Amino acid sequence: MKIKNTPALTPPMGWNSWDCFGASVTEDILLANAEYIAKHLKVHGYEYVVCDIQWSEANADSTQYHPFADLCMDEYSRLIPAPNRFPSGFKAISDRIHAMGLKFGIHIMRGIPRQAVHRNTPIKGSDAGARAIALPFANCSWNTDMYGVNPDMPEGQLYYDSLFELYASWGVDFVKVDDIARADYSRDSYANCREVEMIRRAMDKCGREMVLSLSPGPAKIEAAWHLSRNADMWRITDDMWDDWKLVKAMFERCDVWQSHVGPGSWPDCDMLPLGRLRMFKGGEDCRLTKDEQYTLMNLWCIFRSPLIMGGHLPETDEFTFNLITNDELLHLVKSGVAPMQLFRSENEAAWMLYDTDGSLFCAIFNLSDEERCVRVASGALGLEKISSAYDLWKHENVSMPESGIENTLSPHASRIYRVI
Amino acid sequence: MKIKNTPALTPPMGWNSWDCFGASVTEDILLANAEYIAKHLKVHGYEYVVCDIQWSEANADSTQYHPFADLCMDEYSRLIPAPNRFPSGFKAISDRIHAMGLKFGIHIMRGIPRQAVHRNTPIKGSDAGARAIALPFANCSWNTDMYGVNPDMPEGQLYYDSLFELYASWGVDFVKVDDIARADYSRDSYANCREVEMIRRAMDKCGREMVLSLSPGPAKIEAAWHLSRNADMWRITDDMWDDWKLVKAMFERCDVWQSHVGPGSWPDCDMLPLGRLRMFKGGEDCRLTKDEQYTLMNLWCIFRSPLIMGGHLPETDEFTFNLITNDELLHLVKSGVAPMQLFRSENEAAWMLYDTDGSLFCAIFNLSDEERCVRVASGALGLEKISSAYDLWKHENVSMPESGIENTLSPHASRIYRVI
Amino acid sequence: MKIKNTPALTPPMGWNSWDCFGASVTEDILLANAEYIAKHLKVHGYEYVVCDIQWSEANADSTQYHPFADLCMDEYSRLIPAPNRFPSGFKAISDRIHAMGLKFGIHIMRGIPRQAVHRNTPIKGSDAGARAIALPFANCSWNTDMYGVNPDMPEGQLYYDSLFELYASWGVDFVKVDDIARADYSRDSYANCREVEMIRRAMDKCGREMVLSLSPGPAKIEAAWHLSRNADMWRITDDMWDDWKLVKAMFERCDVWQSHVGPGSWPDCDMLPLGRLRMFKGGEDCRLTKDEQYTLMNLWCIFRSPLIMGGHLPETDEFTFNLITNDELLHLVKSGVAPMQLFRSENEAAWMLYDTDGSLFCAIFNLSDEERCVRVASGALGLEKISSAYDLWKHENVSMPESGIENTLSPHASRIYRVI
Amino acid sequence: MKIKNTPALTPPMGWNSWDCFGASVTEDILLANAEYIAKHLKVHGYEYVVCDIQWSEANADSTQYHPFADLCMDEYSRLIPAPNRFPSGFKAISDRIHAMGLKFGIHIMRGIPRQAVHRNTPIKGSDAGARAIALPFANCSWNTDMYGVNPDMPEGQLYYDSLFELYASWGVDFVKVDDIARADYSRDSYANCREVEMIRRAMDKCGREMVLSLSPGPAKIEAAWHLSRNADMWRITDDMWDDWKLVKAMFERCDVWQSHVGPGSWPDCDMLPLGRLRMFKGGEDCRLTKDEQYTLMNLWCIFRSPLIMGGHLPETDEFTFNLITNDELLHLVKSGVAPMQLFRSENEAAWMLYDTDGSLFCAIFNLSDEERCVRVASGALGLEKISSAYDLWKHENVSMPESGIENTLSPHASRIYRVI
Repeated sequence: MKIKNTPALTPPMGWNSWDCFGASVTEDILLANAEYIAKHLKVHGYEYVVCDIQWSEANADSTQYHPFADLCMDEYSRLIPAPNRFPSGFKAISDRIHAMGLKFGIHIMRGIPRQAVHRNTPIKGSDAGARAIALPFANCSWNTDMYGVNPDMPEGQLYYDSLFELYASWGVDFVKVDDIARADYSRDSYANCREVEMIRRAMDKCGREMVLSLSPGPAKIEAAWHLSRNADMWRITDDMWDDWKLVKAMFERCDVWQSHVGPGSWPDCDMLPLGRLRMFKGGEDCRLTKDEQYTLMNLWCIFRSPLIMGGHLPETDEFTFNLITNDELLHLVKSGVAPMQLFRSENEAAWMLYDTDGSLFCAIFNLSDEERCVRVASGALGLEKISSAYDLWKHENVSMPESGIENTLSPHASRIYRVI
Repeated sequence: MKIKNTPALTPPMGWNSWDCFGASVTEDILLANAEYIAKHLKVHGYEYVVCDIQWSEANADSTQYHPFADLCMDEYSRLIPAPNRFPSGFKAISDRIHAMGLKFGIHIMRGIPRQAVHRNTPIKGSDAGARAIALPFANCSWNTDMYGVNPDMPEGQLYYDSLFELYASWGVDFVKVDDIARADYSRDSYANCREVEMIRRAMDKCGREMVLSLSPGPAKIEAAWHLSRNADMWRITDDMWDDWKLVKAMFERCDVWQSHVGPGSWPDCDMLPLGRLRMFKGGEDCRLTKDEQYTLMNLWCIFRSPLIMGGHLPETDEFTFNLITNDELLHLVKSGVAPMQLFRSENEAAWMLYDTDGSLFCAIFNLSDEERCVRVASGALGLEKISSAYDLWKHENVSMPESGIENTLSPHASRIYRVI
Repeated sequence: MKIKNTPALTPPMGWNSWDCFGASVTEDILLANAEYIAKHLKVHGYEYVVCDIQWSEANADSTQYHPFADLCMDEYSRLIPAPNRFPSGFKAISDRIHAMGLKFGIHIMRGIPRQAVHRNTPIKGSDAGARAIALPFANCSWNTDMYGVNPDMPEGQLYYDSLFELYASWGVDFVKVDDIARADYSRDSYANCREVEMIRRAMDKCGREMVLSLSPGPAKIEAAWHLSRNADMWRITDDMWDDWKLVKAMFERCDVWQSHVGPGSWPDCDMLPLGRLRMFKGGEDCRLTKDEQYTLMNLWCIFRSPLIMGGHLPETDEFTFNLITNDELLHLVKSGVAPMQLFRSENEAAWMLYDTDGSLFCAIFNLSDEERCVRVASGALGLEKISSAYDLWKHENVSMPESGIENTLSPHASRIYRVI
Repeated sequence: MKIKNTPALTPPMGWNSWDCFGASVTEDILLANAEYIAKHLKVHGYEYVVCDIQWSEANADSTQYHPFADLCMDEYSRLIPAPNRFPSGFKAISDRIHAMGLKFGIHIMRGIPRQAVHRNTPIKGSDAGARAIALPFANCSWNTDMYGVNPDMPEGQLYYDSLFELYASWGVDFVKVDDIARADYSRDSYANCREVEMIRRAMDKCGREMVLSLSPGPAKIEAAWHLSRNADMWRITDDMWDDWKLVKAMFERCDVWQSHVGPGSWPDCDMLPLGRLRMFKGGEDCRLTKDEQYTLMNLWCIFRSPLIMGGHLPETDEFTFNLITNDELLHLVKSGVAPMQLFRSENEAAWMLYDTDGSLFCAIFNLSDEERCVRVASGALGLEKISSAYDLWKHENVSMPESGIENTLSPHASRIYRVI
């Protein structure tokens, strides 16, 4: 029995335009980043090139949205890329990206454009107009573009079918649906869950395998089974940025979601806010300290989060490049089994992950603002004693007491070991 | 690596004294029910005989607790059975039950007796008295017997170790820990989760395999991974009784918990309030209609809940006996794979479950107060068409359209089919 | 110092079209009810004739709203009455009502029409268009007509000023503003409170004294001081209908709000759902029993709620007429001092109210579903003994023990006495 | 009619031992502070000398409580002062304080001692023992001394009556009841509100007028009418300390409570954490800046909070002495009318208060961390223009534009003016 297609047997890896260009990404930027991936990152496993929000608005320029902005739309109430920003169109861009051996992704907002509803424009394959399928009270709380779509009307499904037919014709491989993952889960009353199901059905019918990614978070843990059944990845946090408070908060989110990580079911810690960010403000380097950046990578990888770079890749510095291309660490994302938090407090945390060969990884984290020795007893790892410990960032065996993993860590620092 | 012992590879089945005797169960009652199981139910899979709450209080007499009641306690602040009610003691009772080929379970309240704390009586193996390990503000909200135990003190663990050493010496096979499963999950601040861990450690050390069952519910879904790692079963509902509203509410609980059902990890719908109940009031028959009782059994079984009978077994009538001994249905509890809700609304629900041979079960439920036709399309079951449908209660194949399962159901009624 | 104008020194009394005509009221209906009031009710104190929601929509027909319906609007983005329903216009209707010695009220929704925003139509006295002042995320959750108005822009105030200039020109005496009274109170973040202040300012400037009534409820008690400072009356409940559960729930609301009743500050129990209701469905009599209707009137009056009849007056039956015209009871609404709940439980309640002459009123209520004797000790009323008790519905002195008020009441029944 | 006795027609002023001595106050400390008040503060209106918590525990030593500590208790289950700490007893101490022209207050915890309950000691005038009247599940969440008292049993009232009989015999003028003011208000289910009523009745019967002060906060605004009817003052905040965040948070509390300030009804901002604090740690000066201390005094006074000094008075420095003895400011507490917040945001606030002579006070506050000009238009004060502005701290008229009050204020600073 096929419940969903499964292009995401391992956590998707790639790049997304939001952290560097907000709503203002263009064709040239997409292609420049794609070329960087093809040349430098593909060999490490990165493959998706994802165009984030507002590609149908001619004047989008930052992370601030323009209320009631006019959007480019086709004759069937479907948003299309703004020609001034994407002159070749998404089909041609997709072809170029595919030619590099990569995959193409787009962002969409849940729903149907408000401008379609107020003009009552057509739905493909239906006599009903846009007004008939709009849900007037299931709106986004931070962007005025859309109304929700009514799942109780066959025309609602038809509209989503028409969208994914279009995306398949463009050669889209990955769809990030926004304004949909944060909802309380209640099948009877809340439109979002049923929009997820409409999207799942439309994707299954469209004739092309795609990854379904849901945003923004935090998703509710009550909906875990529903998300896992319908989507490939879903955000477990609100927008992640280069701020230690957000990194630290992720430990709590990963704690709650740890038993839901597996093939085709990826709780998503959001993009990696690393390297060169906020180009719409002229460009800023990641504000996290180096220790904090290692900690972020160690957590994302031992938890097996999708890894979608947020920085503008052509301006990647050497530190960042090394940070995101440590193959010994990326191996955890691709091949680890059963991520498990060992403990967590305000001050420290530890995680383990099995490798498919029966060995295991253990990460220790100092979450406090002071130097701190963090310890994991060998028994907690199911081992009688620690025989050897290999540091994945030093790339060498390190001395470790038989009684357990331990290390004195700087504030916000961490270590990750392969342990036998 | 051994995280917990695993005596509960399939959902535990047995009997518990609460629904029929409340806090007033005695040795004679336990043994009378054990004999019934040995003679009539063991062949169907039932094996646990569980003595519920307040066995250390000489005067317990119903489901109402006596505030500040005196409890029987040994020299190490450990509660022991009241001799007037259990004259042979739990070791001898356990031996008799084991001799019948059955297993013996007991209920305990989380914590240390208040009377031990106010008298500051000893803890085995420790110089600290009971007062030192009590958590004054982590009390039960419905029973005055206990204070919580401080997980930050080694003497707290020592106390639990001493309890399970005692239970192992009695030959206990199943421990239902109460006042512990309902908590919000927050490792730093809330004592309950850490008391679960102390109990897990004490059980692992005690030298005897036991099932760990946590009550009362509803457990919080945020704690799913923690519960699954430490316990074998945990209540997902407050006390279940013979009231349709409670049966209907269970559909919502099973919805949320469906992805957490598997070996050693059993979300628990609570005892089956069937047959002869409330003997402490003179005895009352189950108030659910027959349709409602079938619906209860169908849900519990397709969800793979533990099955612990609540009625006084020696007075079981024929309808109830047949209800709980349908081997074709009990097969789902013992051998089903991946219970999955297909849909749920205020008015109807449907579930499926795979068998290990690749065939599947499908149950349809009318939750409304009116007759209603409930349908499941074959596609929703992953089948191109329905080839045959076998009714597990009629014990025969029934006619079914190829397009899907459907039946017109009386209010609160249900059907369950093996489908090919 | 003038904080607000004060036309509501006593609780407003009158009639409103919602309970009988929903959104479908017309000029003829307004005038027919006005004539009834002038002839039969004015002598008892009723004076306001209020036209409820959706008077600018040509096709409104019941209590169900039409999403995205077209509304009649003037050149300054202001809604005006639909000519097919109000052919004379509100100025002429107002003149007719004033000529009867009565007052004219209208309902408005907080905000600016969505159709004005999407067309970006003009604001009177401003170069900004409607789009500039709309708050895209402060929408009503049950009606699609409007967007909120931005209180941080001078043009937002200008728009409200232009509305009340128009209403003053129409001769409006009472404005019921909807979608505004239910909000959590937080001055910084929530638009509703600041929209109340914009409306207050616009009303103060408009040159005509008007009552400001805010809906729907329940208003939050945290906002009591803000409501009292800006409005004359505000709903403390969601829509009230002829259902005992809602009447009973009002006792809880009155409990909470009792210390906020006084001149110009009227917590509002909503319209009296009495007499001939739901004319848009062909007309239905009030479903409350007679005892329940007396209880409703007794509570509304001893609490000093505004009294706005909801039934279609020309079809008022004799029982209802007597119910709403008991001058001895209406005297409490007009002249009572300091309503005070004496006690309240699930089963019973009692209230007292002082008269300006130092005597007092006491009402007792049986809220249970069984006959029940309800007692108030004389001491609880501040009296050494009960000297006499006058029954306001029997219109005569009744025998009463000196020790206190007491009576055996039928389910849902009540009594109200003048006590000395 | 007498609802409560009214010794608190103006906000009580005095001193309390908590902020300086926590639970460790002694007879000598009480008397030393009383002497200071008699000599230096009485002339400014301060009169109450209040002995805070844990006076019955011989070993109390700081703000940390000792779980399950033994308490001094009389033969009727009533707590009495620990003789090692109060060797003269409360009657003699009270006499000495009265002889200084001052008043004596004590702190009590709601309820009956747990030690009385577990020993089942007698209740005066009753055959029932302490166990019979204890409410096992209505406990304090931060102190283990007491169980709640059952309001449904006449013996519960008897116990409180016996307490206040004792307090009256001691000459107590002020009782601060703790663990009682924070509750959600629900008459049916929650014990606290009914314990307030038992205490009110006991106080009314005891033959001595006393102020009833309820702690800790924050009290719920839903209970405003109940608090005002039964108590003289009640805390609207959790414990106040010398921390700017707490001072700033008080602006939000005063906002909500402003319409409940008046004779016998004093929302309480808690003790003034000024001067010499935390003597149990060796003594620490108030950590607020001078600007913050002025702001605290200005808010407490224009809101008309009770003024109870928290610092150890014999070590009062000159700045603090001047701060708490500005008679022009204290006049507001004693004689102001209708405190009214004009506006409040994260960054600024303004309040006004009428004097009985028709003039008014206006205070402006900079709540932000940066210099800021705060303005109040004359119209907002009900004035056509500002004729004169007298600065209550400079003690002179200052220049002010006719258009309104304005001043550029340092971070956290404020000004208060008499305005004509």
